[in-house]
Amino acid sequence: MTAHWPTVTIVGAGLIGGSAGLALASRRLADRIIGVGRSEASLAAAQERGAVTETTTDLAAGVAAADLVLVATRVGMIPSLLEQIDAAVRPATLITDAGSTKASIVAAWDQQPNRRGRFVGSHPLAGSHQRGPQAAAADLFEGRLTVLTPTPTTPPGDCEAIAAFWSALGADVLELPPAEHDRLLAAASHAPHVIAAALAAATPAAARRLTAGGWRDTTRIAAGDPELWADILLDNAAAIASQLEQVTATTDHLRAAIEAGDRAALIRLLTHAKESRDALGS
Amino acid sequence: MTAHWPTVTIVGAGLIGGSAGLALASRRLADRIIGVGRSEASLAAAQERGAVTETTTDLAAGVAAADLVLVATRVGMIPSLLEQIDAAVRPATLITDAGSTKASIVAAWDQQPNRRGRFVGSHPLAGSHQRGPQAAAADLFEGRLTVLTPTPTTPPGDCEAIAAFWSALGADVLELPPAEHDRLLAAASHAPHVIAAALAAATPAAARRLTAGGWRDTTRIAAGDPELWADILLDNAAAIASQLEQVTATTDHLRAAIEAGDRAALIRLLTHAKESRDALGS
Repeated sequence: MTAHWPTVTIVGAGLIGGSAGLALASRRLADRIIGVGRSEASLAAAQERGAVTETTTDLAAGVAAADLVLVATRVGMIPSLLEQIDAAVRPATLITDAGSTKASIVAAWDQQPNRRGRFVGSHPLAGSHQRGPQAAAADLFEGRLTVLTPTPTTPPGDCEAIAAFWSALGADVLELPPAEHDRLLAAASHAPHVIAAALAAATPAAARRLTAGGWRDTTRIAAGDPELWADILLDNAAAIASQLEQVTATTDHLRAAIEAGDRAALIRLLTHAKESRDALGS
Repeated sequence: MTAHWPTVTIVGAGLIGGSAGLALASRRLADRIIGVGRSEASLAAAQERGAVTETTTDLAAGVAAADLVLVATRVGMIPSLLEQIDAAVRPATLITDAGSTKASIVAAWDQQPNRRGRFVGSHPLAGSHQRGPQAAAADLFEGRLTVLTPTPTTPPGDCEAIAAFWSALGADVLELPPAEHDRLLAAASHAPHVIAAALAAATPAAARRLTAGGWRDTTRIAAGDPELWADILLDNAAAIASQLEQVTATTDHLRAAIEAGDRAALIRLLTHAKESRDALGS
């Protein structure tokens, strides 16, 4: 698989899109990197950083010459953007996205059988509580996992081509069915986001000056953009609700042990939690 | 207030005690820094790092010459250690601790009216999920808050002397009644610890490889020592249980908005959480 694309178009040149552009540029993987967006200022910032070589607010024009299109916008916008992109690309153009949920995006694509483009869903597990091309980094994907979510009807060659794209940016690639991706991400990312938000929101203002590293770490992702996260949470509602029930039940077990003064049970629960945490490293 | 103590004894030369020793040594605030502990290996490690100038496993001998004693052990051991220390110190020796809960420790001290030593409870809001003198750092307290918890019967001069000690180590000092300290710390530290543990424990093993920075941040403190944390959680049970109820109720609100597809309510809750988090900085 040749790791070079004459023209890559990035729709949404924020943290993820901008980082992909920087990685493409620094690794000389594309001749043209076209940034498409709605905000001229944001596009200018991406170009200023070297994440794209040219910019446009005209989506159809921006994707017309592309060999590969990456959609790196908010989840809620992706299905309708895919429709517009598919109407404007050359036949057989590779298209992928970077959305944090996959089942509804893939299903939206699949409901139309005759597509010009060839789409495989992606989710690079890299991010930040920061946003925008200013926060982009050429090494954002290095050594991080990108999940591809082909369906039984995805041509293997399309999947290999998109895998080659993310590999070329430094990512490790894993394939999962879209629904399995969403179920696991509910536990790995979406429910933790809700919990961090609940913790931050439930902290009385008077306690803020007494917070230290523990509170700061535990609530850090609650600083994320509410609009962006609302998209994700609403798109994966059932799996997230189910995982939140698990977390709440575990919290209740811990609380019961604390209230009962049951040291043995508390140690057992804390030790299980520590083992789960230690399995990941710091 | 002169910031020099001929002899400081540190009981428990782990992360906190070791860091206090390193700060005393690097700032030349004490001539002798005596490390007292049960583990010869740990004491040797503290001395090797320069956190103490001499060591002993004999508590009475270690505190006999002290001008100031800092008890930096697990919370559950502090009341009985204070009894032993009070029986061995010279009259009017200043004693403080670094326990993460304060009401029961202060009450245990106060239940005996005729003390040789003069105790003021302290809680430096500095820590780590790491442990031991190996993790100690001379700058651990710099710019961080240390809470002192005098009671209405604490002589103001004693409080000033202990405040001068922490200030000399670089800390900012704040006074709070012991029960108020415990109530606020339940929200700022203890309940977040329980929530991080619940989140780590409730994450299925299959989801682990899909975790990224968000999960790692949110669960980091779950790697803390279960014995040490069981002490803290059991000693502040009522306040923690009450705060956990708040967090669970907030989680339930978020979950209800997600399940109902109520984007406006979800944005409102996430925005409130973000404002609370943003008030603290990264």
